[in-house]
Amino acid sequence: MATVPLISEEQVKEKVRDIFDDIKRTFDLPFVPNLFRAMANHPAYLEASWNRFKVIMGPGKLDPKTKEFLALAVSTVNNCEYCTNAHTAGLRRMGVSTEELLEGLAVVDLFSGINKFLDGLRVESDLK
Amino acid sequence: MATVPLISEEQVKEKVRDIFDDIKRTFDLPFVPNLFRAMANHPAYLEASWNRFKVIMGPGKLDPKTKEFLALAVSTVNNCEYCTNAHTAGLRRMGVSTEELLEGLAVVDLFSGINKFLDGLRVESDLK
Amino acid sequence: MATVPLISEEQVKEKVRDIFDDIKRTFDLPFVPNLFRAMANHPAYLEASWNRFKVIMGPGKLDPKTKEFLALAVSTVNNCEYCTNAHTAGLRRMGVSTEELLEGLAVVDLFSGINKFLDGLRVESDLK
Amino acid sequence: MATVPLISEEQVKEKVRDIFDDIKRTFDLPFVPNLFRAMANHPAYLEASWNRFKVIMGPGKLDPKTKEFLALAVSTVNNCEYCTNAHTAGLRRMGVSTEELLEGLAVVDLFSGINKFLDGLRVESDLK
Amino acid sequence: MATVPLISEEQVKEKVRDIFDDIKRTFDLPFVPNLFRAMANHPAYLEASWNRFKVIMGPGKLDPKTKEFLALAVSTVNNCEYCTNAHTAGLRRMGVSTEELLEGLAVVDLFSGINKFLDGLRVESDLK
Amino acid sequence: MATVPLISEEQVKEKVRDIFDDIKRTFDLPFVPNLFRAMANHPAYLEASWNRFKVIMGPGKLDPKTKEFLALAVSTVNNCEYCTNAHTAGLRRMGVSTEELLEGLAVVDLFSGINKFLDGLRVESDLK
Repeated sequence: MATVPLISEEQVKEKVRDIFDDIKRTFDLPFVPNLFRAMANHPAYLEASWNRFKVIMGPGKLDPKTKEFLALAVSTVNNCEYCTNAHTAGLRRMGVSTEELLEGLAVVDLFSGINKFLDGLRVESDLK
Repeated sequence: MATVPLISEEQVKEKVRDIFDDIKRTFDLPFVPNLFRAMANHPAYLEASWNRFKVIMGPGKLDPKTKEFLALAVSTVNNCEYCTNAHTAGLRRMGVSTEELLEGLAVVDLFSGINKFLDGLRVESDLK
Repeated sequence: MATVPLISEEQVKEKVRDIFDDIKRTFDLPFVPNLFRAMANHPAYLEASWNRFKVIMGPGKLDPKTKEFLALAVSTVNNCEYCTNAHTAGLRRMGVSTEELLEGLAVVDLFSGINKFLDGLRVESDLK
Repeated sequence: MATVPLISEEQVKEKVRDIFDDIKRTFDLPFVPNLFRAMANHPAYLEASWNRFKVIMGPGKLDPKTKEFLALAVSTVNNCEYCTNAHTAGLRRMGVSTEELLEGLAVVDLFSGINKFLDGLRVESDLK
Repeated sequence: MATVPLISEEQVKEKVRDIFDDIKRTFDLPFVPNLFRAMANHPAYLEASWNRFKVIMGPGKLDPKTKEFLALAVSTVNNCEYCTNAHTAGLRRMGVSTEELLEGLAVVDLFSGINKFLDGLRVESDLK
Repeated sequence: MATVPLISEEQVKEKVRDIFDDIKRTFDLPFVPNLFRAMANHPAYLEASWNRFKVIMGPGKLDPKTKEFLALAVSTVNNCEYCTNAHTAGLRRMGVSTEELLEGLAVVDLFSGINKFLDGLRVESDLK
């Protein structure tokens, strides 16, 4: 159970309400995810974090699917349950198949192993 | 400096020589990367690892650029210097620009932070 | 469920009983936390670990609240559920508010992200 | 060596120049740290990140020294060389002594160990 | 709950069936562990991974108990619940006592702490 | 370079001198490793840590080679350069061959990968 209150939509007003509305609209969700409800205990942090979230995950050179896969890879290496669930759900909503998910996780498996083999033997970098 | 010998191409024969040749051909490189030269101290492990490497990084549903970006994200979170250098070089050879690299690393930055915020507060998963 | 027995207060005598009593007194708790009940399977390790615990967490130059916050930050980055719960409870007992907890976790979020951005791009250290 | 260009102060204009000036003023530094020079390859990300940095590290309930110590603890667990150097330097500028640094790192040592002992034995949480 | 289907023994045929049979025989288990049922969503990856698993965990210079302890140490530092459970069960089947498990986890505790103390202070390597 | 002074043998007296002598005798080394020279900035922490080090690494049920291999595995997953060098040197002094080192690191590679595959897909534990 979360160690801080998760602020509900009923509790907020003005600026935080606008952010909550923008979050639901952006993700096309009928509710505000717990991540942002936890952040709402510190409104200035929520606001700056949400603005930055939209800059990073918004339109750019990389396509949204690649970004969502990167988010899943990061969350997997960090072993964050909330986040692996959220980004897998995000990829599913984009139409990603089980085959694609498996291929992505196989890459995570492969290089998580190689990373440690190389670091454990202090092998010098030769590919730059 | 590596704590085990890095086996040179001159030292190997038969099966390991064939693997070394296949590695150079697959990556279109004039030399065998230190990763595989370290693995060659244990030929059966090198062989099984190289076979699996080709299965995971070979043709599939995900495109090679997405896989290389996933490899960079994993190596970044694990802070493996050899591997971040290697996968950045791999992405550059595929024509990836500095802008795209920055966008990818910004996603790694964003979710590395969010992962920890959520775990530190034990926020329950609500996106599945 | 723990993969080793958690030694109960009824089971122990002499030296371990004294340590258990000291633990309850030090933390002002009516029971011995599972951490130490697991350690009690190896009494010499429990004794040396408890002695060192008191040296590190006892009076010094840093105030107890800063130390408890550091413990929470470490446990958050390591994603240890037992420990994030325990140190949050410890901070609450010291009177730390939700606002302060959020500020602390925001710092963890911020630098967990920046750490990875810098490592992923191999940016050279210039602030020493 | 960084795998992307580090944008110099001479290269930037308008918005990024203003951010660079604000960074130097905020940290009271005669130069822009490499972190922000790397981020400047993606100006919108730099801007959103700097705004959020100031919210998180600016005035609040927690004092600046506690926040800087939290930043050092996070960077230590993540083993980010740039960041451990930067936050140690930051603490030194605040007048933190070697004794205090040692006490802080001893806490990091203690709980990094305990975190793993508990996770390795799957010990159930009893302190909430 | 797993985010991909866990392929059952009833669903598979030919090559994957042979691998499933080999897995049960090798571990002397009446069922196929979920790890391999998840991998079976990508048969070529399952096959290459299982072949390599047998090379690494099969007969060699290191005895099976040492390898199983290494697997537990790795899984502990990575905080993988599935894996710490599985390798503890594996060690128990080899006759490892609670005392030995505690000794092994104490080593993990000790060096997880020392690792971070050294990295946090950037102490130079002098033992090579 | 270390961010705190490394206390030299010439600087210390009485209790710390005795600990330094015990360290050199225990490891059969002509000098005090930097780890303990850094700890000596906080003598009570050095003393409690050294006492505990000897309890954990001293005689017990597990043989010294297994403990040293566990130390290497932990240090590898944490990517601590000082520690991977130190424990590899320790294993070499015990007569461990390159073949054995490779086998051990192959186990680290294997399960570092599997850990992440399982966590990324939230596969339920079935081996206990």
